[in-house]
Amino acid sequence: MIINGLPGELVNANDRGLLYGDGVFRTMLVRNGLIPHWHQHYNKLQHDCSALALDCPPIKNLADELSLLTHSHPEGVAKIIITRGTGTRGYAPSVQYQATRILSISPFPNYPASFSSSGVKVHICNTRLGLQPRLAGVKHLNRLENVLAAAEWSDAHFSEGLLLDETGHVIEATRSNLFMVKNNSLFTPDLSRCGVAGLQRDRVIDMARRHGMKCKITTLQLENLLDADEVFLVNNVIGLWPVREMTGYKRNKFPVSLLIQDWLLNESH
Amino acid sequence: MIINGLPGELVNANDRGLLYGDGVFRTMLVRNGLIPHWHQHYNKLQHDCSALALDCPPIKNLADELSLLTHSHPEGVAKIIITRGTGTRGYAPSVQYQATRILSISPFPNYPASFSSSGVKVHICNTRLGLQPRLAGVKHLNRLENVLAAAEWSDAHFSEGLLLDETGHVIEATRSNLFMVKNNSLFTPDLSRCGVAGLQRDRVIDMARRHGMKCKITTLQLENLLDADEVFLVNNVIGLWPVREMTGYKRNKFPVSLLIQDWLLNESH
Repeated sequence: MIINGLPGELVNANDRGLLYGDGVFRTMLVRNGLIPHWHQHYNKLQHDCSALALDCPPIKNLADELSLLTHSHPEGVAKIIITRGTGTRGYAPSVQYQATRILSISPFPNYPASFSSSGVKVHICNTRLGLQPRLAGVKHLNRLENVLAAAEWSDAHFSEGLLLDETGHVIEATRSNLFMVKNNSLFTPDLSRCGVAGLQRDRVIDMARRHGMKCKITTLQLENLLDADEVFLVNNVIGLWPVREMTGYKRNKFPVSLLIQDWLLNESH
Repeated sequence: MIINGLPGELVNANDRGLLYGDGVFRTMLVRNGLIPHWHQHYNKLQHDCSALALDCPPIKNLADELSLLTHSHPEGVAKIIITRGTGTRGYAPSVQYQATRILSISPFPNYPASFSSSGVKVHICNTRLGLQPRLAGVKHLNRLENVLAAAEWSDAHFSEGLLLDETGHVIEATRSNLFMVKNNSLFTPDLSRCGVAGLQRDRVIDMARRHGMKCKITTLQLENLLDADEVFLVNNVIGLWPVREMTGYKRNKFPVSLLIQDWLLNESH
């Protein structure tokens, strides 16, 4: 772990990341000592920082510090956390502050290969996402809704949890974005009121368009999803998982999901 | 500062309080080395911990550790943070974990005495609170909405910011609870969908009832507030501040507010 440029594991207990969740993060795959799509990850980080009016460290500093980690850990999952650092007491951000940057690498989670090829079973969460347009799409450190949702199931047969918002719209899963396939077109939830807009979601949208497949960002109801030809989940770490089973939904063929999985894997970085 | 029973200023960067805001806190006045209403504060802490299915440390441990701080800092503001500690990667809480407890005391903020006697000017925030019944009322560490709201004004003439929810109901201020006075009755917003239920709010409700003053927990629109006889803000640190001015609202007499202020000050602890 590298904190503000130095090896270490400890942060100040007055860091606003801890006090208020006043910060953002990114989770990225590390393969052969490299981070695929690094520039797009950095762009996302910058975007999310600016949503909180938070200074994003220069790309070179982060890349240099990450390379210290990837050198000794060439395979795994890298995480960058940027917080507004320590400051004066109270919610109002100081004008003068030094952002905290925390970089770490953890081992690649041990997901069975079948998750990608044969799909996963998904729990439909009771926890609903609240609407907050000011924070929607941003990968910030206020993640209690995800924690509450992920605590809903302990049955290891479920690999993810589907999240609806308070109005009943389908938004995402607890740690991945969601697409549905209907008549060879893609549909993915609009994230302008809640949810996290992951980079893998952007990649799928972009790739579908480049391959001439229709992809619509829209409002989805649970009924739409249960009636879909295919549903799949994406993030940078899992790649793409077709959904095999949810309450009221069962599929065993995922031709479009697997085609897109192929596109994602074979795109040059 | 005392962290997990030991003097220190540092926490593990993998603490879930930092990663996800997975924890709760309390802010309490310290006077003459004592914390007024300590048992009620602890009950609130316990309640908030249980909302997150988080183990609350025993009252004796916290009291003993706080007394180490209040001994050397007999006047100020104490803060207790309880987090779900470090854990395995991912949102799902581990079954086995060691809660982190962070206790600190900071100096009493230097508010002019006129805030209590002559009232304060309040900014009406554009940031709206999202609805999340699962977390409503709880003083948890996901406080980005408060940060965004408090960042809205820099004019020092404003002492607080009024927060409405996404449906337009008045809920609270960024760091205090709100009451309105109309025809010698009190009204305070219902916090079952968002907001933080502070201890001072409970005390006002309780004291009003004990003194035979009607106090209704209800849904309030901004129009109701602007039409009130008096509006006041409460928390443990500020005590009670009448509202002197908001956009569309100006008052210079606060008889009921000052009566309740008197009740709060004179109640035996």
